[in-house]
Amino acid sequence: MQQERCSSSNRPLDPGCLLECDAERSADRLGCAAVDFPVAVVLPAGGSGERMGLPTPKQFCTILNRPLISFTIQAFERLSWIGTVVVVVAKENHDLMLNVVQKFNHTKVKVVQGGTTRHRSIFNGLQAFSNTTDSPTPKPKVVIIHDAVRPFVEEDLLLKITLAAEEQGASGAIRPLVSTVIATTSEGYLDHSLERAKYRASEMPQGFLYDIIFQAYQRCSEFDFEFGTECLHLALQYCGTNAKLIEGPPTLWKVTYKRDLAAAEAIIKETLSTSACIIAGAEAEAVELAKTLQKNLNMTETDVIPCGKESNAEYLSKTRNFIHISATGSNFLSILEMVKRFEDTDHARLYPVVIVWVQLNMTKQSGDSQRTDNLTVFRSLASQVIQGNVLLYGIQIDHSKVPEQWERSVERLTQITAALIRDRNTALTGQLLHA
Amino acid sequence: MQQERCSSSNRPLDPGCLLECDAERSADRLGCAAVDFPVAVVLPAGGSGERMGLPTPKQFCTILNRPLISFTIQAFERLSWIGTVVVVVAKENHDLMLNVVQKFNHTKVKVVQGGTTRHRSIFNGLQAFSNTTDSPTPKPKVVIIHDAVRPFVEEDLLLKITLAAEEQGASGAIRPLVSTVIATTSEGYLDHSLERAKYRASEMPQGFLYDIIFQAYQRCSEFDFEFGTECLHLALQYCGTNAKLIEGPPTLWKVTYKRDLAAAEAIIKETLSTSACIIAGAEAEAVELAKTLQKNLNMTETDVIPCGKESNAEYLSKTRNFIHISATGSNFLSILEMVKRFEDTDHARLYPVVIVWVQLNMTKQSGDSQRTDNLTVFRSLASQVIQGNVLLYGIQIDHSKVPEQWERSVERLTQITAALIRDRNTALTGQLLHA
Repeated sequence: MQQERCSSSNRPLDPGCLLECDAERSADRLGCAAVDFPVAVVLPAGGSGERMGLPTPKQFCTILNRPLISFTIQAFERLSWIGTVVVVVAKENHDLMLNVVQKFNHTKVKVVQGGTTRHRSIFNGLQAFSNTTDSPTPKPKVVIIHDAVRPFVEEDLLLKITLAAEEQGASGAIRPLVSTVIATTSEGYLDHSLERAKYRASEMPQGFLYDIIFQAYQRCSEFDFEFGTECLHLALQYCGTNAKLIEGPPTLWKVTYKRDLAAAEAIIKETLSTSACIIAGAEAEAVELAKTLQKNLNMTETDVIPCGKESNAEYLSKTRNFIHISATGSNFLSILEMVKRFEDTDHARLYPVVIVWVQLNMTKQSGDSQRTDNLTVFRSLASQVIQGNVLLYGIQIDHSKVPEQWERSVERLTQITAALIRDRNTALTGQLLHA
Repeated sequence: MQQERCSSSNRPLDPGCLLECDAERSADRLGCAAVDFPVAVVLPAGGSGERMGLPTPKQFCTILNRPLISFTIQAFERLSWIGTVVVVVAKENHDLMLNVVQKFNHTKVKVVQGGTTRHRSIFNGLQAFSNTTDSPTPKPKVVIIHDAVRPFVEEDLLLKITLAAEEQGASGAIRPLVSTVIATTSEGYLDHSLERAKYRASEMPQGFLYDIIFQAYQRCSEFDFEFGTECLHLALQYCGTNAKLIEGPPTLWKVTYKRDLAAAEAIIKETLSTSACIIAGAEAEAVELAKTLQKNLNMTETDVIPCGKESNAEYLSKTRNFIHISATGSNFLSILEMVKRFEDTDHARLYPVVIVWVQLNMTKQSGDSQRTDNLTVFRSLASQVIQGNVLLYGIQIDHSKVPEQWERSVERLTQITAALIRDRNTALTGQLLHA
């Protein structure tokens, strides 16, 4: 019962690419080659806070200071073969949505006002496209309909959905059923249970030839608009189109409850923590410590580069985690240079960048006397760079010639560094910890 | 579509009681009064790591250093009207399970070896009960069957399931369907979609008269043992018992994917962070700071008590978060006394206890000169008490007569304290932070 859902797909898949350079990955080039027709997206995000029983509608709840819907938009926007993303929001969230679009620089988004039900909102979104080809939002051949609260949709699946929709007229993602589905009597007793293997859960995204789904909405009844849940059903009923069904990964799940937000946050933080760039000062001890840390951190990709190269665009764009190891007195100039580069390249706009400043104290004295001064300067620096979405933490480590003592310190340094990178806790920026 | 599932039940409910004293709550007394017959539990936990495609089976994955299954066991064990909890595990996890039982002092648990499928494991569990009444595990009148990976089952629901099972012979928890369920053609196309309102997802717990479910298993076929998923179905097919269905809360969900572990951890951490006890030193400034912190922390329940009462059992048992504010030099004796009391009362066995040691520096000098000495002693103390599951963190705050400066410091103190309590991060214990 469990293993069918838990085998290789048990671990959360990579939640799309979190780095801009990924847009140049092979999959996207593949997508560009395979999709030689216009594709657009309609993203219904109409739920209002009031109806959801939460102060903020789920799609506007933030993870790492960024609304969930921005992650979902980015999953489409990064793909060059996808054109306009029409986001349909309730009237009361219109301005909020425009702010999100501006703050996170969503250049492909068009914001449209929603209707009173999900189907009315989707139809509003479809009507945002124009029949004239010289319009800024011309009618696409295929339109993908997705949920604002499913941020982890991957290119591979979008490609399959799009190609199947172009070929068959309609397509949709499915998943195996998580629970047995049962029919109930009107008195609340078990009537019968369905044979699980014959049924699937219908999920998002779904794809349609634009003309088919548009026609389905033009023909459908008021009852459908009011109570219908399933676009695939409308395409079948009103256009005779049997959708092609495509098995999607478990990460397609819909962020519904507060706990789902925590799950989404965990996935995003884990993905952000798979790589780091360690910048080693010139001293032999700093270089050695950098190499040990590289090994101990056990991330998928960790580069060690010499100090002075930290504003090199190549390294900056590969990760959002930087560990700066220095054995000389405090000179925060290189942090400022890095932060300047992040600003120039917009590197911290979508995800906070972490800088862990490791101060390697070679003698006991230097550590003590400098500590208080350092603290004040460091804290003020941290409160300055956090404005640009850069989280700066400090760790002091005392060099020791006693192997056991040094090993313990390095072990603590590893644990603290890993925790700071993973948690991205804003309350702890500007602290000088001690390994 | 969304609002039906998202209304008032959107926020995670209180995940059962996390404090031992809750066992004396009114609900439990109610349970004792309503349930005047023997009730036992069978908890199939047979999934092996190999089959789940993860190094550790989900039920043994840890949250706050404690396996998931221990949380589930505790949800039953804390209820006085529930007797034996039979845990059915795969042979290879038998010793691991015995260790869990011992480490977390699960006194009601009997560990039984599982079969090759879920149904075989449940039947093994049922066979662990004896027909003779003087056996340590006599046959109960009602048996509750639950999943090891659904830790947040609440007494209210268990009571309803148990009473309905006694009355009707069988009962089960249900939830509204999250997705539309569709029937597929053999070629992978949409055949038709089910009308969502007529169906429900069958969840756990389920309850049965022991004789009915035992008989159902005795009569059922090899095919059922091999491929069946639903105990309610067996009771219907082999004993003609239509189960009573009872709507459960969303927190019943099954921890299936890695992201679900993150969600469960978030629920547990949030529940642990709703209360605190602030221990204020004798100085006027310490008392004032304690009161401000009490207000700013904005928890459901925060007590302020004078120093010296911190090993008072009444306060200790009410929370697992302690904030000790002192303006005099470091005297860690009172921490040691508290930790001693935690040991005596087993207070940190099931959940880590947090102590935030706030050092209020009245003059700039005292802070500087003492800092390094303090750090060494404090760190060694932290590494000592963490052995007893107590997480000790330090925060220094410099008193200032400049109102704006003081307010900023108090604001930082609040944020850091809240973050330390919420995250329960072991890598940061022994650190002296600065507000």
